[in-house]
Amino acid sequence: MFDKKQKNNTPQPDNMLIEGRNAVSELIKSGQAVDKLFVAESAHGRMGEIIALAKKKGIPVTICDRRKLDSMSQTGNHQGVIAQAAAQDYVSLDELFERAEQKGEQPLFVICDGLEDPHNLGAIVRSAEAAGAHGIIIPKRRAVGLTGIVARASAGALSHMPVHKATNLASTIDEIKKRGVWVYGAEADGTVDLYKADFAGATALVIGSEGSGISRLIREKCDFIVSIPMRGQVNSLNASNAAAILLYEAVRRRI
Amino acid sequence: MFDKKQKNNTPQPDNMLIEGRNAVSELIKSGQAVDKLFVAESAHGRMGEIIALAKKKGIPVTICDRRKLDSMSQTGNHQGVIAQAAAQDYVSLDELFERAEQKGEQPLFVICDGLEDPHNLGAIVRSAEAAGAHGIIIPKRRAVGLTGIVARASAGALSHMPVHKATNLASTIDEIKKRGVWVYGAEADGTVDLYKADFAGATALVIGSEGSGISRLIREKCDFIVSIPMRGQVNSLNASNAAAILLYEAVRRRI
Repeated sequence: MFDKKQKNNTPQPDNMLIEGRNAVSELIKSGQAVDKLFVAESAHGRMGEIIALAKKKGIPVTICDRRKLDSMSQTGNHQGVIAQAAAQDYVSLDELFERAEQKGEQPLFVICDGLEDPHNLGAIVRSAEAAGAHGIIIPKRRAVGLTGIVARASAGALSHMPVHKATNLASTIDEIKKRGVWVYGAEADGTVDLYKADFAGATALVIGSEGSGISRLIREKCDFIVSIPMRGQVNSLNASNAAAILLYEAVRRRI
Repeated sequence: MFDKKQKNNTPQPDNMLIEGRNAVSELIKSGQAVDKLFVAESAHGRMGEIIALAKKKGIPVTICDRRKLDSMSQTGNHQGVIAQAAAQDYVSLDELFERAEQKGEQPLFVICDGLEDPHNLGAIVRSAEAAGAHGIIIPKRRAVGLTGIVARASAGALSHMPVHKATNLASTIDEIKKRGVWVYGAEADGTVDLYKADFAGATALVIGSEGSGISRLIREKCDFIVSIPMRGQVNSLNASNAAAILLYEAVRRRI
């Protein structure tokens, strides 16, 4: 029933698995194409709402042994439900700008420069969606892509958040700058005070990788380097925590 | 050489393991008692600084096979160095207040109500330390304690951040309220606007658990329920992301 690819940790784009009640429920509600829903027999009773939702949308539901879900699972925590979905399609850069335009808002993007931890990327997608950002930009190489773990860590937000995969992140930054977006890198030694940065205009926030921060080339492309105040002994934050702080400072400037 | 307890995922309080270069280095610098340092032979060359630091402080260093570290490791990612430390001692509530007093600041505490994910607790400790908070309060029961994974996820911040373990979280909240601290819960349906909350005074921020938020009893104890604006489709944030947003809103009000 499943080909072997589905057991890999890096699912093929055409058979992404979405796991867990929250994530599956958000996925179905988003209207994205879902090929099939797998529900563990033992969890059947708790899945009434999700099953009803799936049936309403014409999604085939298979009730099966929990062990089948265990062997499919990429996250190790499927909570008794897995959706086999069409890939979360990466979108063009234009679509990110269109989303902002449709909402009548100045663009707010998050650029992730080389994140490696899918939990961090998922949490960033979640905070970005909650903050009303219009898109995420990730590089094609040397970074985590949109795996099932990212989807789950996003608690369903990935279904609502367009993601652009840049073949060349530096050129993509050049392009968005040409289109009027101010690019802010976040680093400990930044020269712009977080609370004085003008995130009300068209803004892209660059988040560096867990280990080494923003790469030299991308840093040089940034219009400004913003510094989050460090008032203790440590000199950096978890990547998703840093992104959340920046995003909600942008929210403060925009409401 | 190691008793079996050290291989458990929940280390005994008296033989906590701290893993990874950053975390070990911060631990040693903090001056906390370290019993022993284990360095993988294969990583020896990269550990010059840490080894010198340990020797300066009189900490015994054992160079051993990487496989020995693999079998000790609780995080699965020791990077070639593990410190066997005296437990991170939980501190009294008084010590949290004293820390604020010593710095001449209004208290800023984070209360974690039933967090289950050690990565979230670690990230919260890291952001709290970076934001200059004076302490973390966690409940004794039904919540993750200070494991090696928490220490590692905190990237060393745990060594600098006092943590109080409350036998009864509700009574502890009553006590800090009596001592003049305003207690703010964070929930989606809060009545106080995040950007209008007066975090400049003595403040405790209550973060709910990953699955079910703040428990009913603790919610009733809060002076205010603050709501982080949700401008997209999802209606909640990752626990550590929510904590970071609240903490840095407090920083903004305090600088």
